[in-house]
Amino acid sequence: MTDRTEPLSYGSYLRLKELLDCQRPESARLGKRAHDEMLFIVTHQTYELWFKQVLHELDAILAIMAVAPVAERDVGRALAHLERIVTILRVVIGQIDILETMTPLDFLEFRDLLAPSSGFQSAQFRAIENKLGMQRGRRLRYNESPYEAALPESERSRALDPEHAPSLFDRVDAWLSRMPFVRFRDFDFWRVYRDQVEAMLAGDAEVIGRSHADNPAALAAQLAQLEATRREFATVFLPDEYAKARQAGLRRLTHEAFLAALMISLYRDEPILQTPFRLLTVLVEIDEALSLWRYRHMQMVSRMIGSKIGTGGSSGQDYLRRTVDAHRVFADLFNLSTYLLPRSRLPALPQAVARELGFAWAR
Amino acid sequence: MTDRTEPLSYGSYLRLKELLDCQRPESARLGKRAHDEMLFIVTHQTYELWFKQVLHELDAILAIMAVAPVAERDVGRALAHLERIVTILRVVIGQIDILETMTPLDFLEFRDLLAPSSGFQSAQFRAIENKLGMQRGRRLRYNESPYEAALPESERSRALDPEHAPSLFDRVDAWLSRMPFVRFRDFDFWRVYRDQVEAMLAGDAEVIGRSHADNPAALAAQLAQLEATRREFATVFLPDEYAKARQAGLRRLTHEAFLAALMISLYRDEPILQTPFRLLTVLVEIDEALSLWRYRHMQMVSRMIGSKIGTGGSSGQDYLRRTVDAHRVFADLFNLSTYLLPRSRLPALPQAVARELGFAWAR
Amino acid sequence: MTDRTEPLSYGSYLRLKELLDCQRPESARLGKRAHDEMLFIVTHQTYELWFKQVLHELDAILAIMAVAPVAERDVGRALAHLERIVTILRVVIGQIDILETMTPLDFLEFRDLLAPSSGFQSAQFRAIENKLGMQRGRRLRYNESPYEAALPESERSRALDPEHAPSLFDRVDAWLSRMPFVRFRDFDFWRVYRDQVEAMLAGDAEVIGRSHADNPAALAAQLAQLEATRREFATVFLPDEYAKARQAGLRRLTHEAFLAALMISLYRDEPILQTPFRLLTVLVEIDEALSLWRYRHMQMVSRMIGSKIGTGGSSGQDYLRRTVDAHRVFADLFNLSTYLLPRSRLPALPQAVARELGFAWAR
Amino acid sequence: MTDRTEPLSYGSYLRLKELLDCQRPESARLGKRAHDEMLFIVTHQTYELWFKQVLHELDAILAIMAVAPVAERDVGRALAHLERIVTILRVVIGQIDILETMTPLDFLEFRDLLAPSSGFQSAQFRAIENKLGMQRGRRLRYNESPYEAALPESERSRALDPEHAPSLFDRVDAWLSRMPFVRFRDFDFWRVYRDQVEAMLAGDAEVIGRSHADNPAALAAQLAQLEATRREFATVFLPDEYAKARQAGLRRLTHEAFLAALMISLYRDEPILQTPFRLLTVLVEIDEALSLWRYRHMQMVSRMIGSKIGTGGSSGQDYLRRTVDAHRVFADLFNLSTYLLPRSRLPALPQAVARELGFAWAR
Repeated sequence: MTDRTEPLSYGSYLRLKELLDCQRPESARLGKRAHDEMLFIVTHQTYELWFKQVLHELDAILAIMAVAPVAERDVGRALAHLERIVTILRVVIGQIDILETMTPLDFLEFRDLLAPSSGFQSAQFRAIENKLGMQRGRRLRYNESPYEAALPESERSRALDPEHAPSLFDRVDAWLSRMPFVRFRDFDFWRVYRDQVEAMLAGDAEVIGRSHADNPAALAAQLAQLEATRREFATVFLPDEYAKARQAGLRRLTHEAFLAALMISLYRDEPILQTPFRLLTVLVEIDEALSLWRYRHMQMVSRMIGSKIGTGGSSGQDYLRRTVDAHRVFADLFNLSTYLLPRSRLPALPQAVARELGFAWAR
Repeated sequence: MTDRTEPLSYGSYLRLKELLDCQRPESARLGKRAHDEMLFIVTHQTYELWFKQVLHELDAILAIMAVAPVAERDVGRALAHLERIVTILRVVIGQIDILETMTPLDFLEFRDLLAPSSGFQSAQFRAIENKLGMQRGRRLRYNESPYEAALPESERSRALDPEHAPSLFDRVDAWLSRMPFVRFRDFDFWRVYRDQVEAMLAGDAEVIGRSHADNPAALAAQLAQLEATRREFATVFLPDEYAKARQAGLRRLTHEAFLAALMISLYRDEPILQTPFRLLTVLVEIDEALSLWRYRHMQMVSRMIGSKIGTGGSSGQDYLRRTVDAHRVFADLFNLSTYLLPRSRLPALPQAVARELGFAWAR
Repeated sequence: MTDRTEPLSYGSYLRLKELLDCQRPESARLGKRAHDEMLFIVTHQTYELWFKQVLHELDAILAIMAVAPVAERDVGRALAHLERIVTILRVVIGQIDILETMTPLDFLEFRDLLAPSSGFQSAQFRAIENKLGMQRGRRLRYNESPYEAALPESERSRALDPEHAPSLFDRVDAWLSRMPFVRFRDFDFWRVYRDQVEAMLAGDAEVIGRSHADNPAALAAQLAQLEATRREFATVFLPDEYAKARQAGLRRLTHEAFLAALMISLYRDEPILQTPFRLLTVLVEIDEALSLWRYRHMQMVSRMIGSKIGTGGSSGQDYLRRTVDAHRVFADLFNLSTYLLPRSRLPALPQAVARELGFAWAR
Repeated sequence: MTDRTEPLSYGSYLRLKELLDCQRPESARLGKRAHDEMLFIVTHQTYELWFKQVLHELDAILAIMAVAPVAERDVGRALAHLERIVTILRVVIGQIDILETMTPLDFLEFRDLLAPSSGFQSAQFRAIENKLGMQRGRRLRYNESPYEAALPESERSRALDPEHAPSLFDRVDAWLSRMPFVRFRDFDFWRVYRDQVEAMLAGDAEVIGRSHADNPAALAAQLAQLEATRREFATVFLPDEYAKARQAGLRRLTHEAFLAALMISLYRDEPILQTPFRLLTVLVEIDEALSLWRYRHMQMVSRMIGSKIGTGGSSGQDYLRRTVDAHRVFADLFNLSTYLLPRSRLPALPQAVARELGFAWAR
């Protein structure tokens, strides 16, 4: 603990002197002052400040979920951190509106001065991706190089170290795998569930038949897709099929975790599952928000520089477009709805089980 | 003019009795009341009300721009209508947040009851696309059928008729083509411009060389792309090349219109070009907003139904994903920035020309 | 159940024919077509559609909370309905951006034609206020008349009936009052809490002394306010003081309910309190969103019509400005933070109590 | 121009090392780490970065408008800077959503550590207010002291210096006062206008009579207000009355400027007035956005700390509430709509005048 000699002021507390000294336009340094470069700098600096906050939240969540088992009261806290991340990402996405007030012509004034620096060099953004659990093998390659090639040596560890620690994905998988209520001693939930699925798919077949009675080509196409759906369900219920799907990269969660997530989605109204259900929902929202950010970022870049090379000397636009969908971490959760049943078909939980999922108080 | 017997009230003016009687959940009709179906109905009805308003604005713009030449004072009015459309689309996009409060499980409760109706059947949305100028040939096919196949016969004309009238795209093209200031009697603007482009591309080549000196593969890739850029510039300056690009579907504006749009972007500070520049910008924003709407809609559908068939019996998700980028109308404007020059390289306008672009008052 | 003769289509399902026939501009009827009147109508109609949805959600919540005691699993469902209301209100607030694209001059074109109808006549909005629990006695009077005087007779019951049924406020009060964990058999929580409060206020006094050592006037003012804070705390702990504050209109919740709400805020991390804490938070957000809506609405009206009379013949602006703060329902919850203690000062819960607040599973 | 020895990287360009070293939580320094203090710091630092950008834009605008007369082409540029400020303020307002993810209990953890620093000490925010043109005499006093008393000596000049330079308000007033088209040689515009106003007020009187025929008290109240409106119009047309209103603090613009602003609002479709009209509109939007920011800020503070003292030892909430409406700069423009006439009553401009307001090209 350091002692203060002066009373704390707003400016000294926020270190405004230092903070507001970090904006150094290249165009000013080179004597060709371009007004909008300040906007470019400030926008990216606020991005980085928010990224720091996102990392701060992720670290808190990772600490909570590193404990096994995670205490129920701490799941609520992890949820609050995750929801804050979504709120931050929404503001970060909104900042693109500000960048878009810079016209392409104004950007041209200083664009070349920034080479070869590039947004691909944001070590904090890479760290966020890695802490969430983006897999190296799933990353698109950029300029035929691994992503860290773009980073200056001094910043690589910030981005790369999280790759070697358990990610949020890993922690969520472990937490789900440990959920005790998925196995029901005397009650074979998953068998009942499977019967219901079969009944539902039979119903879908009928709907398709009715809708496309007069269009044989469409009928055939739809039935083929239904058959594919049936095969997808098999991958959920049959451990071997699930393992195959996982090996093929179509699933990433372990089988245990996947079933727990499905169970939570189906019985989310049970008191013990309310907070876990929200947590799964917010993970999907984070993925969605990051995709949306990538999408809007790509739109903005393409409008700003057309088909010219990016400031990093990259053919960035194509790369950006492809990351929008590819760089998703919780795709498994995103797709859970494929396997849901309407509540009306949902097998009722046995009394004893339902009681276990309630509060001690109520017993 | 009808006479009123009673004083106007808020309720009678807005026809609230009729309006609030239009929500008829199928689940209620069939005795399986699903709470969230009301949300589904209300959200789509508000979409349709906003679509009606967008069409109202588009009709006003089309009327203004049907006159040749369009009076300068009316360009300002057209701009205000276009800006309103953007504001409406932002709210429409925001409504997806509301739909996302419906969980997949809740949607399942009534999803099957809606078959075979489908959002693909929104005649007003098709009319908006057609009035903006979406080309039939550019539309992705859905279930191997033209889009109107999905529409009930009674609503086809609403969607299809605008296809046969001049669209906003057509009107903008004609308005741009007529811009008088593109031709400068004694001043060969485009020749000077071309020289500057050549100088700039030479500079880019140097930047690339510097950035990738130690990475021959990246260097080659970047240089190849620069060469492609050079060829793209040729398509702008050489009428024959432009014609070829247009025939190949890479351009849609006429050559005259394209050059005028480029000119406006370059000299947007001239008084006479300020409003036209905003108008071009807003056209891009409309395209961007519609793309964003499609993107978020696709995200939402995919989260809601996973890989199951849509309510229209469609494998809608893939279709939706592909329309995001494909169904763009003003792609030419979106890409204008490819051909811009930094202000510092911009040829100065001759005095006489500059005066013509100012106000009568100032002469 | 009625039978359908035709397959459901998007248009027939949404009753688009009827819905899109409800826009009848007065200016058109009177032969002085004003373009922007359509915007005015559509915006208000979408408001009313969303109000209908908010009422639909409120009814679902009221049904859930009418049961005593409310099952824990249903609290989660009530919460989801409330969160949806907040999301809807955010879009409703955003719609003001659309209305603001109408300039005052354009509004003037048809404003007089609408007299004497007025937004004060929205029966659904009054019903929302009443279902939330706005008290007749707290409403500001408008034109010296009770609010229903502005409503046409045919719509009064829609607005007024909810006044005579238990409101959300009433249900929340009852639900809080029944919370069992507020009384701790052997553990006098509130005594410990009070001791801590005293300690904290003593600390605040010291802070104030330090901050204003050289400014006696400010020092006196701050100390007087601290004394007021101390008296406010007394109103929480002493039933007689609480009763007095309630009689004076400074509190509305019963004492039992107020203490439960405070308890929930303090121990929100306990599993059994996580969902109740969110529910209280969302109630505050609803109040906040409605205040924000009133604030922006007032700003917009004032910008639109200056100090002229409103369409209802009202001097509406002043009235609107005063309702912003006055028409709040859950002010008690809004002010809870006055009585919080830092976690570090929070008395630890006895083991036995903490266990009761957890899940059956974990015992 | 300094030489670089290393190629520019994203991190060195943005000075990320320094920027990300400016977050120094007091709670960490004192060994009582409070997780949410980082959020508090980052949010306020992003505010300050955006404030710096707003000042950067204001400086550009002030430079443009310091020239007399302002060239038409530069008015377009000033407009773009102002619109950017509005876009930035919208993001700044949206950041309150992030702060609100911090619960009152979490804020309590570190609130006392920050004393006596306070948001009232933001020198940049004061500078923004002063550059816009807030008048010292109009500022509410806080703790009985002028606002600069709260600022540390080292930061006072940043906040205070702009008070002594011409503000945006001053520049706008001068720019409006110089507008040449307000005086029409042979055409007494304002006399015609006044006649129309009289006719309109007579119409309003009739509307009021009709609406309140059966409510004498309301009728009297409305008529009294109409009379007040008539007197308000007098203040516009009669220089002496205007001078009195100005002396009483009800107007701030000079008479010349006020009439020019009214003229621009009435004839905004004329080519030469399109950009000035947008500029006036955006000034109102800036005032509106700042008011909204103050309003939401006040809501948030009140929710966060209840009626306790602020971190600056202030009874800040009341102060904040009162600044919402009081600290407005362009109130004159906000109220312009009081004096508008429907287009249908608007006197037509003489040919010669209309031609002057068009483009040279068209003559």
